[in-house]
Amino acid sequence: MSAPTAVVNVGADLLADAVADQAVPVSRVDWRPPMEGTEADLALVAADPRRRTANERAVEAVLGTTATLVDVAPASELLGLERGQFLHAGPPITWERASGPLRGALMGGAALEGLVEDPEDAAALFESGDSVSLDPCHHHDSVGPMAGVVTPSMWMFVLEDAATGRRTHCTLNEGLGKVLRYGAYGPEVLQRLRWMGDVLGPLLQRAVRTVRDSAGPVDVTGILTQMLQMGDEAHNRNRAGTLMLLRDLGPAMVLSSRGPDATDAADVAEAMRFVGGNDHFFLNLAMPACKLALDAARGIDGSTMVVAMARNGTDFGIQVAGTGDEWFTGPAQVADGLFLGDYGPDDANPDIGDSAITETAGIGGFAMATAPAIVRLVGGSVGDALATTRRMHEIALAENPRWSVPVLEFQGTPTGIDVTKVCRTGILPQINTGMAGAVAGVGQVGAGLVTPPADIFPKALHALARRVPPSPS
Amino acid sequence: MSAPTAVVNVGADLLADAVADQAVPVSRVDWRPPMEGTEADLALVAADPRRRTANERAVEAVLGTTATLVDVAPASELLGLERGQFLHAGPPITWERASGPLRGALMGGAALEGLVEDPEDAAALFESGDSVSLDPCHHHDSVGPMAGVVTPSMWMFVLEDAATGRRTHCTLNEGLGKVLRYGAYGPEVLQRLRWMGDVLGPLLQRAVRTVRDSAGPVDVTGILTQMLQMGDEAHNRNRAGTLMLLRDLGPAMVLSSRGPDATDAADVAEAMRFVGGNDHFFLNLAMPACKLALDAARGIDGSTMVVAMARNGTDFGIQVAGTGDEWFTGPAQVADGLFLGDYGPDDANPDIGDSAITETAGIGGFAMATAPAIVRLVGGSVGDALATTRRMHEIALAENPRWSVPVLEFQGTPTGIDVTKVCRTGILPQINTGMAGAVAGVGQVGAGLVTPPADIFPKALHALARRVPPSPS
Repeated sequence: MSAPTAVVNVGADLLADAVADQAVPVSRVDWRPPMEGTEADLALVAADPRRRTANERAVEAVLGTTATLVDVAPASELLGLERGQFLHAGPPITWERASGPLRGALMGGAALEGLVEDPEDAAALFESGDSVSLDPCHHHDSVGPMAGVVTPSMWMFVLEDAATGRRTHCTLNEGLGKVLRYGAYGPEVLQRLRWMGDVLGPLLQRAVRTVRDSAGPVDVTGILTQMLQMGDEAHNRNRAGTLMLLRDLGPAMVLSSRGPDATDAADVAEAMRFVGGNDHFFLNLAMPACKLALDAARGIDGSTMVVAMARNGTDFGIQVAGTGDEWFTGPAQVADGLFLGDYGPDDANPDIGDSAITETAGIGGFAMATAPAIVRLVGGSVGDALATTRRMHEIALAENPRWSVPVLEFQGTPTGIDVTKVCRTGILPQINTGMAGAVAGVGQVGAGLVTPPADIFPKALHALARRVPPSPS
Repeated sequence: MSAPTAVVNVGADLLADAVADQAVPVSRVDWRPPMEGTEADLALVAADPRRRTANERAVEAVLGTTATLVDVAPASELLGLERGQFLHAGPPITWERASGPLRGALMGGAALEGLVEDPEDAAALFESGDSVSLDPCHHHDSVGPMAGVVTPSMWMFVLEDAATGRRTHCTLNEGLGKVLRYGAYGPEVLQRLRWMGDVLGPLLQRAVRTVRDSAGPVDVTGILTQMLQMGDEAHNRNRAGTLMLLRDLGPAMVLSSRGPDATDAADVAEAMRFVGGNDHFFLNLAMPACKLALDAARGIDGSTMVVAMARNGTDFGIQVAGTGDEWFTGPAQVADGLFLGDYGPDDANPDIGDSAITETAGIGGFAMATAPAIVRLVGGSVGDALATTRRMHEIALAENPRWSVPVLEFQGTPTGIDVTKVCRTGILPQINTGMAGAVAGVGQVGAGLVTPPADIFPKALHALARRVPPSPS
């Protein structure tokens, strides 16, 4: 038993005491050696005179961001995407190295854009590389869940930081199961995407603009605050968030059924049913809200804060505030979790998607304590969920007072992953995630828990160390 | 220190272990003597050969009930209420003994029904007793929050147990602050009630019937299951429940804006805004769902289960499965909690409302562990909230597997208060509640925690003891 022991009164107040204990800053109990080979870089970065202030600025920038929903429009308009341009989740990758689900989503996307008739024919197109290009969402102020494929005709949410006018984007969530972002591309997938483009997108645009111009835009950061008091951790549980979005847009959706260019009431009802029937709909707002906050810390020299964690299904990459746009990558891992139907670990693709931006910002896996019911989806025990949030505080720079966890006496979630703390403790960020089938076309096979490959943090640390200005001595 | 002590490993798993400990049946740690003067009755009831089976039947009846929302209609139609008939919360009471908030709500109700022009003139009417009558909601298959006043023109939800066709009823929730159920009766209160009767009621009737006749009625018991995983305890937090109701009725509300007798889209939007803007809207479905379940256990000879706890603002009354329709009453207490604005304890009326039916069924104060954020409304600490649910298991006959608390490793909520356990332990049911101003017309002044007067349980026990059949010896 490596942990110290103490005498504790086992009475009616045991749980209360134990919980209260979590609410005070936790000192690390289990000491672990730093990650192998990081001692010299840790010493260099620790001595960087810019570090403390830089991290304070980074934390302030992240916590100071407020994401509001200001528009919905096609990617062609918002990002200037042109025919043949495809965005995807994670760090840069080629078709050649792309995993099954990313390939499947690209193939479906090519059919959606009319580049091919049959998605199966798209493989040759991407192999040839003629008139098609791949680029990370993150390079276009965007994030995408799972495969994260964005094509010009897809409609996207636009989130804005009121104070600075900075914007981020994300597509509309399709639901679960056989959906493009999990690599499925059957006729029902394309039909749904076409309906989203023809009906849902324009309807949401009208509603979002009506709300924005009357009551003021939907406060996505504020909804996240509420979600964390309602059992959502905003990565794999977004039920309360989705319902609050529906509450905020519902009346404007209804009103779009009258007037000159009215939407048919049956379409409005169908759109409401679609949104309300998909507990994950809000994920595609939570993600760009997190990116909007973290982007505020990009490019702060000397800061050791992670500003993006993202996976393309092959590589897991991180970006750090103090190292510009450089990606530090390693092989994406397969999650450990629960499987749908007859699927098992052999059917699962390695970790994929930009959705780890939620953990990067301090929710998702980092906020599992507030969403204990999530263990029924991703596995583990309720105790694990509570312990995870507690452990993540050990590698975080701050607590987010806006995102407080009631059961931990309203302690803020661990926010701002510190590369040096990860290297010093060996504690890896905990991500909870959906699992895509490894084969293109399959769709979702499960959900579970995963961490980044350990070696990307020493890589990032080394890059930080190389940037430390020479000491004046 | 009366509790035993033990050595516990204080490490990363402390909280996990502590929480896990809560998930196993808890043996009482703090022994307390039975309530004074109950020994003989406890012995008699304990020896009742019918008791065990009767309580098993009562538990089965309660857990076997499923509440669905099958209709919305005026009280005149549903309950046959006629002009001058007033229902109210709690056990029977006269105008003479009625508290401020009950008087205020009756006065407002009289004006709503056109019995008087000015609510202030209604006092004389009720004093005279001419052509007016008061009767408890509970005597009419109904429950009412706070003052619980029901008049013929008020629209009510109709909940039905699918298996038996039994029904219960409750008015539509008005929102917070200056509202009739808290004893306010100003022009804005009456105007809102008229809008609810003219617009909201008929619109909800169409939507509820459309949903009932197409997808099947809204499953209120099922929504309660979800709420308990979303931070609602369904008495003073009903946010997730309200949102799920809006999700389930929204599309049908939209569709009621077209067709021959269409509701104007602006009215539909306004109704959605009203429901979505009132986090307590679902309370008026949670309450009749609880009554529907508990009514299933009424009249089971030998059962010591409480089937109703209700307050009229003056008296707190309980009814018990094994004692027919008899009320056991004592003085209602003033809650201990948090106050709105400048209000303080001196402004608060004693406990009022049928809403303690939620605690009687195992939610509300009994499920506070699942809604730790509630302490910001009713006071206390998160640890208290967790300890409360745990303590209530000590006086409950069963756990409700449908109402499970994630943070307690999905343990079911404590369901079915046992009069004998209350008398044997002295542990009183914990209720969380809104507080009405003591003066008629004021409205809500706060929210807090309260218990029934202790002596009503020995009274009920004595009545049970008197009904025990003579032993054959």
